[in-house]
Amino acid sequence: MDDCIFCKIASGAIPSAKVYESGRVVAFLDANPMSEGHFLVVPKTHWRDLAAVPAGAAAAADDAATIAEVWQVVAAGVAAAVEVFGGGANVLQCTGEEAGQTVPHLHVHVIPRPKGGETPPQFSSGAFRYASDEARAATAAKLDAAIAKRMQP
Amino acid sequence: MDDCIFCKIASGAIPSAKVYESGRVVAFLDANPMSEGHFLVVPKTHWRDLAAVPAGAAAAADDAATIAEVWQVVAAGVAAAVEVFGGGANVLQCTGEEAGQTVPHLHVHVIPRPKGGETPPQFSSGAFRYASDEARAATAAKLDAAIAKRMQP
Repeated sequence: MDDCIFCKIASGAIPSAKVYESGRVVAFLDANPMSEGHFLVVPKTHWRDLAAVPAGAAAAADDAATIAEVWQVVAAGVAAAVEVFGGGANVLQCTGEEAGQTVPHLHVHVIPRPKGGETPPQFSSGAFRYASDEARAATAAKLDAAIAKRMQP
Repeated sequence: MDDCIFCKIASGAIPSAKVYESGRVVAFLDANPMSEGHFLVVPKTHWRDLAAVPAGAAAAADDAATIAEVWQVVAAGVAAAVEVFGGGANVLQCTGEEAGQTVPHLHVHVIPRPKGGETPPQFSSGAFRYASDEARAATAAKLDAAIAKRMQP
């Protein structure tokens, strides 16, 4: 969609700190991270939210492959976060404004939770800030490498 | 695993208010719900968390089918929650104690977020209580029907 920020990131029209990209899916660092390495997994297809993804008989094979890859990247991303930062990770998806959705293009949050964080973990956008653009790029590069080795066939 | 509460729920040794069941996956109402209809999607295979699910070349076809079905039920469950309660829904997965994981068997939360809830939505176990066992069973039955029609081939 022309006015969708995540479609623009997917097409490369808006730059982002990518941690994964294929023909169907892109993942990039969240602009207002809850923790270091917090990233979003986004299908390049514009679906508003998880309730809008075609399912069952209504799903074209291409759609089914796209949503399946989203979840594969999420799982790989959780394992990558644990490898890079230690501790654990949260997966969070918000369908609808009532659930906290702000950008109306389906996205799944992967939020690293290193040891020593808040208990219980908090879901506060902007709780973390990178010291510099270089620090941000270095974090993205570590996650990119850790995800890539898990997404190889 | 013998001492795993979710393995016991999956086998039927411990009763639960189920909203979906197949040979590979079970979903049931959370015992300490954050909202009405909050349920968990659980693979019958005992994996500790999302980082423990075999991926890529290491994944047997059977494992890949199980985790794929988990995510299919999650997506169907979000759409079902929106249909049954209105508003939106959150998906939450906690890998590791640092992320808030308390039961060490992979589970994905689906948390209905009807209109008029807290903004931003809170993640507080036990925030909702059913008025009675009958009310709880009625909620489970509505979700079961709404999920079933989306999981048909």
